[in-house]
Formats: sequence, C-alpha cells, structure tokens
Amino acid sequence: MPVLQPIVNIAELIYRKGITDVVISPGSRSAPLTIAVARHPGLRTRVVADERSAGFVALGMAMQSGRPVAVICTSGSAVYNLAPAVAEAYFAEVPLLLLTADRPHEWLYQQDGQTMVQAGVFGPHVKRSYDLPADYTHADSRWFIERSVNEAVNLSRLAPAGPVHINVPLREPFYPAPGDELTFEPVRLIETLATTAQLPTDVWHRLLDEWDDTDRKLIAVGQMPYNPALLAVLHKISEELGVPVVGELPGNIGQNGLFITRTDTFLSGADETLLDSLRPDLLITLGGSFLTRNLKTYFRQHPARGRHWHIGPDASRISDPFRSLSTLVPMEPLPFLEKLFADLDYQRFRQGDDDSEESFAFRELWQQADRRAARVIAQSLAYSAFTDWTATQALMDTLPHGSVLHLANSMPVRYANLCGLPADRQVAVCANRGVSGIDGCLSTAVGAALQTDRTVTVLIGDVAFFYDRNALWHAQLPPNLRIVLLNNHAGHIFRMIDGPSRQPELDEFFETEQPLTAARTAEDAQIAYLFADNPAGLEQALQGFFSPSETAKLLEIRTDKRVNEQEFKRYKERLREG
Amino acid sequence: MPVLQPIVNIAELIYRKGITDVVISPGSRSAPLTIAVARHPGLRTRVVADERSAGFVALGMAMQSGRPVAVICTSGSAVYNLAPAVAEAYFAEVPLLLLTADRPHEWLYQQDGQTMVQAGVFGPHVKRSYDLPADYTHADSRWFIERSVNEAVNLSRLAPAGPVHINVPLREPFYPAPGDELTFEPVRLIETLATTAQLPTDVWHRLLDEWDDTDRKLIAVGQMPYNPALLAVLHKISEELGVPVVGELPGNIGQNGLFITRTDTFLSGADETLLDSLRPDLLITLGGSFLTRNLKTYFRQHPARGRHWHIGPDASRISDPFRSLSTLVPMEPLPFLEKLFADLDYQRFRQGDDDSEESFAFRELWQQADRRAARVIAQSLAYSAFTDWTATQALMDTLPHGSVLHLANSMPVRYANLCGLPADRQVAVCANRGVSGIDGCLSTAVGAALQTDRTVTVLIGDVAFFYDRNALWHAQLPPNLRIVLLNNHAGHIFRMIDGPSRQPELDEFFETEQPLTAARTAEDAQIAYLFADNPAGLEQALQGFFSPSETAKLLEIRTDKRVNEQEFKRYKERLREG
Repeated sequence: MPVLQPIVNIAELIYRKGITDVVISPGSRSAPLTIAVARHPGLRTRVVADERSAGFVALGMAMQSGRPVAVICTSGSAVYNLAPAVAEAYFAEVPLLLLTADRPHEWLYQQDGQTMVQAGVFGPHVKRSYDLPADYTHADSRWFIERSVNEAVNLSRLAPAGPVHINVPLREPFYPAPGDELTFEPVRLIETLATTAQLPTDVWHRLLDEWDDTDRKLIAVGQMPYNPALLAVLHKISEELGVPVVGELPGNIGQNGLFITRTDTFLSGADETLLDSLRPDLLITLGGSFLTRNLKTYFRQHPARGRHWHIGPDASRISDPFRSLSTLVPMEPLPFLEKLFADLDYQRFRQGDDDSEESFAFRELWQQADRRAARVIAQSLAYSAFTDWTATQALMDTLPHGSVLHLANSMPVRYANLCGLPADRQVAVCANRGVSGIDGCLSTAVGAALQTDRTVTVLIGDVAFFYDRNALWHAQLPPNLRIVLLNNHAGHIFRMIDGPSRQPELDEFFETEQPLTAARTAEDAQIAYLFADNPAGLEQALQGFFSPSETAKLLEIRTDKRVNEQEFKRYKERLREG
Repeated sequence: MPVLQPIVNIAELIYRKGITDVVISPGSRSAPLTIAVARHPGLRTRVVADERSAGFVALGMAMQSGRPVAVICTSGSAVYNLAPAVAEAYFAEVPLLLLTADRPHEWLYQQDGQTMVQAGVFGPHVKRSYDLPADYTHADSRWFIERSVNEAVNLSRLAPAGPVHINVPLREPFYPAPGDELTFEPVRLIETLATTAQLPTDVWHRLLDEWDDTDRKLIAVGQMPYNPALLAVLHKISEELGVPVVGELPGNIGQNGLFITRTDTFLSGADETLLDSLRPDLLITLGGSFLTRNLKTYFRQHPARGRHWHIGPDASRISDPFRSLSTLVPMEPLPFLEKLFADLDYQRFRQGDDDSEESFAFRELWQQADRRAARVIAQSLAYSAFTDWTATQALMDTLPHGSVLHLANSMPVRYANLCGLPADRQVAVCANRGVSGIDGCLSTAVGAALQTDRTVTVLIGDVAFFYDRNALWHAQLPPNLRIVLLNNHAGHIFRMIDGPSRQPELDEFFETEQPLTAARTAEDAQIAYLFADNPAGLEQALQGFFSPSETAKLLEIRTDKRVNEQEFKRYKERLREG
C-alpha cells in the first residue's frame, strides 16, 4: 500500500458520504489532498487562491446546496485565512468540512516555514476538530482516520449543521512519482442515522393547553432559508387561525398581504399605546437572528405577556435574545408547525370556532400597522431623490422570478429589508448574518452562483465589495452572477446610525471615504460592467441586466452619501409624523 | 467619572508606555477605543479598512521601528482577519498590541450580530491574552484594566518580543454625547525593568574551553534584523580568528568578501568530500529561521561533529532545526559575541597565536566554495534570457544605499537570496519568515514605509501581490514605497520545485495561471506605474525609479514562466557540472 493511501482514501470517503464539491487553495503541503481530490472522478473542484475568499466561496456553495462542501488549504497562516468564513458558517449553521494540511507536529517551533499550531485552531467556532496522525503504518491509525472522517462528515450535517475541522499532518514525500496511478480503495462507510425529534404526548398537550389559554399569539420568523413548505403551513396558521406571522427579509416569508414584514418601519417611534397593543401573550419564534434593532428592541421592551416558545433543533443552547423565552422546543420548525396546525384544525373542527375572534383582531392590528408602514415607505420613495434606497427598490422590482438574492452586510441588507419582496416572486434571500461581517459577502455570492443555474444577485456596498474583491480573482466566474454595487464611496452605515454620525471622527475614522469605482476591477475580472447614477440610467441599466449572458455582470450605482443621509432623515420625519 | 473613562485611559497609558502608532480598522463596537486614540495628541493613527491588511501594516511598522504598534478592530470576524498577521508576528517575534473590541460576553450565542468567542481567540499565537471586564464601576475592575495594559505592553517588548492580545468588551452607549470633551486622566505606569542575561563565570569558562578545544568553528546567522554592531563583531571574529560566518540574505550579513552568503548555490549538489570538509566541529547559530532547503538539509545531514550552541534570548523553547543542538545560550547574540571576542582576543594577546591556522584554513574552504558559487551565478546570469532572476539582479544592483528591502515569500525571497547584496550598500532586508505566508507581504512593506523616510522596496510575485492588493486600498500610500512586481502570471514556485512540476495537476491546481496585470490596480491606487518585459526596458524603468516622488511607484516586470523554468534548469546543470 502506498504510504499516503489513507489520505488518498479521504477523497473516496467524502465522495461516498455525499460530498460533491471541494474548494482548493493552492499549496505544496496540501498536495496529497489536492491530487487525490483532483483525480477523483466524482468530485468537482474549484481553485481559489485567496484562502479567505475560498472559505466564503465554499460557504456560499454549501448555503445554496444545503450539503457540506469541503475546503482544502495548505499549512501555516493559510489556515487562519479560512477563519472568518468558519466563524460565519458556525453561527449561520452551514456545513463545511475543513481539510487543513499541516506539517507533522514535531516541526512546531523548529523555525520551519508555514508551521503554526493548527490542531484546534478554530477554537469553539467549529463543531469539532480532528487532528489526524502523521504516520499511518499502524492499523489503528488507519482506523482512526477512516472513523474520524466518517464522524466529521456526519457531524457537519447533524442539526444544527456547521463547520468541522480535520487537520491533516503530512510527511514528505507527498507527491506521487511521475506516472504513479492513484487508486481509491474501498472505504468503510459509517452512517449516523437521522432521527426526528418528537415531544411526549403529555408535553404536547401541555403546549396545546398553553396555546388554547392565550388569545394573542404571534409567530416571529428569524433568518431562515427559503422554504415553500414552511411558508405553506405558516400561511394556513395565519389565515385560518388568525395568528400574525412576522418576519424580516432574511426570514424569507415574503410579502403576501397576510404576513407582516415592515416591522423596521412601524416599530420605529410608534406610540406606546400601539406598541403595547401589539404585544402577544404567546410568542413563537423560529429560525436564526433578527436583523433590525427596531424589531429586537421592541420584543425586548415588550416581551410576551405569557409564554415564549422557540422552535429550533439545537437543544444544547438557550438563545434568549428577547429575554422572554420560557420553552425551548428542540424540533425542526416545519414538523412542529404542521402537527400544531393539524391538531388545532381537528380541534376547531370538533369544537367549532370559539375564541378565534380575538386572534383575528390581534392579527388585524399588526396588519394595519404593516399597511400604514407600506404607505410611508411608498411616499418616502415617491418623493425621494436618487439614493441607495430608491436604487435598491428598483433592483428589487426587477429581480427575476425564482432567483437568489444575496444581501451584503451593513446598509444593503437593511435597505433591501425596507423594500421587501413579494412572496409570489419566489426569490430566495441569503445574507451572512452568522457573525454579520462584511469580509466575505461577495465570495459567498460567487459560491452560491457556482451551485445553481438560477440567477444569483448580490447587492453590496462599496467597502464590502472592495474588501472582498478577491472573490472576483477566480478562473471562471459563473455567468449567472449579477453584482449590484451601491457605491457611495464610504462606510456609509456610520453616517446613518446615531452615535458616530455626531462625532468629529466620522469622516476619517468611521465612514472613511474611499475613492474607488469598480470599473477597473470589473475589467480585470473580465465581466460586463454597467454604471448608473440617476433613476433613468438605472432603469436602462436594469433592462436586460438579468437576461442570460456569457459572463457575470456588475452594475455600479453611484449615490451621494449626503443625499442618502438627508432622504433617510426625511423618511424618519415622516415616520414620526405618522 | 464618565463610564468609559478606564477605556479612554488606555490611550494615555499605551502612549506613556512608549507606543506612538495605532492602526485602526473602522467599526462601531470599537468606537470608544478609536475615539480615545484619535483624540489623543501623542498618538499617530492610520486607518486601514481590511483588517487582514491592517494587521500586516502594523506588523511592518513594528518591524521597522522595533517598537510595539497597537491595532484596533471591531468585534466579530474582523478579529479573525487579524490572525494571519498575528501568527506571523508571533513566530517572527515582532511586538504588537491587539485591542479587539467585543460585545460583553453575555451576548454570546444570543443571535446578536458580530459576536463570537474572542477571548483567547488567537490561541498560542499571542504571548498572552487578556479579557477586560465589561463593567468598570468596581475599583478592582479599573485596577485590573490598568495593570493588564501595563503588563501587556511590557510583555510585547520582553524578548522574544511578540503580539499580545487585549480583548475589550464594551457596552453601549459607546459614543460620547456631542460636544463631550474627552479627558485623559493620570495613569499609573508600571515598569518591568529590562535585565541582561549573564552566564555564571564557571559556565562561561566551560564554553571558552569548548571553543579552544575545537579547530573548526562556524557561525551561521539565521534571519536577523539589520544590525551594524552585530556585523562589526562578526567581522572581527571572522577576520581575526578565522571563523567562517555564514548567512543568507534575510540574515542581513551582506557580501563583504569575508562572509559566506552563497550557500544555496554551493551546497546544492556538491560532492560529498567537499560537503564533509565543510563540516564544523563547533557550530554557533544565531537568529531565526534559515531560508533555503539546501542550507537546512546540509546542516541536518552534516551536523557539527562536536558541539552546537544556539545564541538567542528565548530560554523557554528548544528549537533544534539541524538536530545537533547541544547548548542553548539564552542571551542576546550581540553581548554574547562581544564578550566572546574580547575574551578570545585577550587570550590570544597573552598566549600568542596558537592553533588558529586550522581555523583560517577552514574559513578558506567555505570562502572558496562561496567564490566558486559567485562565478556560477555570474555565468548563469550572463548567458540568461530575461527572467525573474535576471530582473531581480538588476533591481538589487540599483537599490539605494541605506534603503529597506522587503522580500515577499515564495520565489522573490529565493531569487534575491541567490543575488545577494553587497554589505557596503547597507540595505536592511526584511521578509515575513515567521510563518512564511504570502498573505500580507505587500501590507507589511506599506507599514514599513510608513515608519521611515528611507526608500522601502518590496519585491513580490504576482500571486502574493494580488492576494494582498488591499494593502494599496489605503488613504495615503507612503511616497517612499517602491513595489517591484515579478509577474509571471502564476504561482510560479510550483513549477520550480520538484514534486508538483511533474504532476498533471501542475497548471490547474498548483501554479494556477492568473491573467491579471497590475496596471489597473496601480491606477486605482493612484500610484505611478512602470512596466518592463525585457532587459533594456527594465534598465530604463529603473533609471530614476528610486528618486524621490510624490507618490509610491509600482514597476511590473513581466516574465515568461517557461523561460524562468528553463533558465533555472540551466543554472542547475551548471552547478552539477561544477
């Protein structure tokens, strides 16, 4: 058996376990992994030179496919460059398998190149970290490797999904002799069977009693992948039981005339009577984080009067952002809500409509607020100069049906949330809200576009765009990628939030004006470039922007940060005036 | 006292402890630190948006000044973006003070933005990690903060110097009210007095006995900052005692007709008789890592026959890259060598020249090899087509007296080492050889240029250049910066080393051809751009390249990777032919 056979087998093993895609950053120490993966007939590979970008590309691929994506990098600080994407994947619960080549540990602190402490290097931001042995002559070592890779892939998928790290110390020589054929040996697969969580009958009945005992129930949906089945059951619960369903854009509930999505607008500066009237007795939350401070502050200051259930698969942690949680239901939201609706429906059928009138009235309160917010938004846009927000609205109005929208952090995700998306457009909305960094938003969208034939649009500000411009330094940018860059030449969010906008350091230390336009970056990346700095120009640029093309396209929209600021102030004044 | 006063005082404290420079990446959570530092009259600040680049800029500043540089970043994955520079600083022993803003720990796992586990996040790659309290109302907390910052700055300097991490959880509100004056309170300075290490007399005499008992002594200098005093004593030891002094370019010993610098050439493929004759009885090593595999392999395969002393301040670790170490002398090399020379000189004066003849003969063996190597190199260059190597030689020939040369990892540092530098040019050579990543070589040079009026030249390959192009996304690039880009459109080192060059995956997975030229990048960065792809063009481009200018300059040199490969093969053939 060739010395490196157990390493070669990793390629076969991850393939047999359902991994199809591997992102590779070039390196020498990682050669045995790279060569094994490159020569494996079932694995698709993508080479990305900058490991920071590679990590986020893999993240985007895994977000899009829902399956773990493997990442291979060489030893040394290359590994640390993956860390921003690893932290995002951990908190966003995206499965990644990180295969980091290492020098054998005896080389640590021996002044050898590209050597640092890699075992456990991602700390608590991976679900587990494996450190493979450098020698495989002993059968126990080969058993350890095979078992660990099995466990690692299983674990990356196990809800909540997340990144798993396998550190792979490798001894020289790690290149096969010229002409040596690589063979993939039969590998042993160890399944971890998937289970579904179920509540004991008595506990379930206690929950139904809690439901029955409260008049005003509310379901709030945090960040969730687009899921039509979940939307269907939420729709039934809201429509037939009169329960308001509330969510922001990353919650992917869409605007359908029933769900409430404009919370950022109507929860801002509303009078206390209204806010108090919106307070539920039973709050049910699903999904990940909420986006806006207005929503989070509202629920912190107006917690559920009675009970607050959170439905989510992680039984190990209590996440209590509204400070009102009473019951953690460690189940996937979809089966929970389907069973809930079925039972309530049956109950309703047997008992007749009883106290649902109050429920409907409560829903109407939320919907009224939402409709009023829609009018304020429409007015603000109608009378607005050309701004990031009006440009975002124009983009949202033209997004293709069934496409994917990535929202970069900082202002773009907030503007897009103000605009919202009609549910019937069936656009899947994604955003790196795990740790909400700006460091890899563009790479993430590139990764997503690599995994689908659908159009993937990313809306991004200039600081995030240039920060992550290595996302475009890529052999084959997917032609279905559409980049929409809001370039106000600054870290504009600092002008839009209260604290820094009033500091003398605003310009130099927070907003940090930057002069770049993306024209040359687009030219370097060999993608189509469009530009607009007024409504008519934007309308024209958006015509045909989404039609299929041979290369990706970048639309740069220039706005004036001071106009943005003024118009946003006007919107806030409108809100205050009601 | 304003709530945040203990945080404001950190600015005063680090200033009073001798820190003058702070690199800041914009963020909101870090605002109290940013504002305190920005308003401090004694601190110079630099704003760098990309934290990865910011870390390396700070590294370059600290390398240049020899003093700790502080870095401020916001919470979340921003912190992880510093990690590549932190690992480099740790292994390269460069002092940094990392001030990372954090959310108070109660927000962990609460779906809050930009929140991850930051305490201890750099693992063993910082000398220590402090986690400040989020509340300072108790006097003990304020004592803890003041004491910790004192200790952290002292520790960053204590030999071996290195990065120290202070995690700073901050509660809202963290912006001063408009018009609020920041006052810097008197702070308590706690000195840690510097000591010099001295050997007990009997131990010292034992070392002198070991010296006297051996005929063939050799001093090998690993990576060291440019240090004229050290060069002076090494010169005396070599000249007067006949001891060969061996070093590569990052060892900063220079070519002076006495020191041996062409080891990479003459240790490659030499016959075993010669190699054996070069083997010392007593090997003395100084400094950090050695660069080339040829040198490292030589000393591993031909370890000192008798003793091997390593002179370096870190008593805590045994670094034994040649597998021959017998004695670790935990002292700074300069006082050790000065005392050694003084004592030996006195001894010589009292006893007369005794057995130094063999010593001189041994030195002559090394010098002969070095001269032969010089001839092979000269011939190889004389008959060579235009390559990265000939271009590097042309650059080395024109580097200004007393300037600073940064060598990016991968091929540039190796080519430059083949060329060498005359000692009388007094060029200080730097390279990120702590973990030898390509991830921040350009940013490091930018940092160095910010800290000196001397010309700072960085020689860099295309992959390292574009990887770290955000180094140029900087409000004020220093006009004394000169970038020389060797663009062969690929990760060329993989073609030059044996393993990958023979794999079918070479092009796609290792060398990974990339099409960019730097013209547009230079235009975006608003720096002067020059281009050469032949000897005459290069000569012209280098004329006046180093004269003072209003902006930094970038000289892109295009070479053909296949020609590079061929010429390098010819050089190796010449070596084999002797």
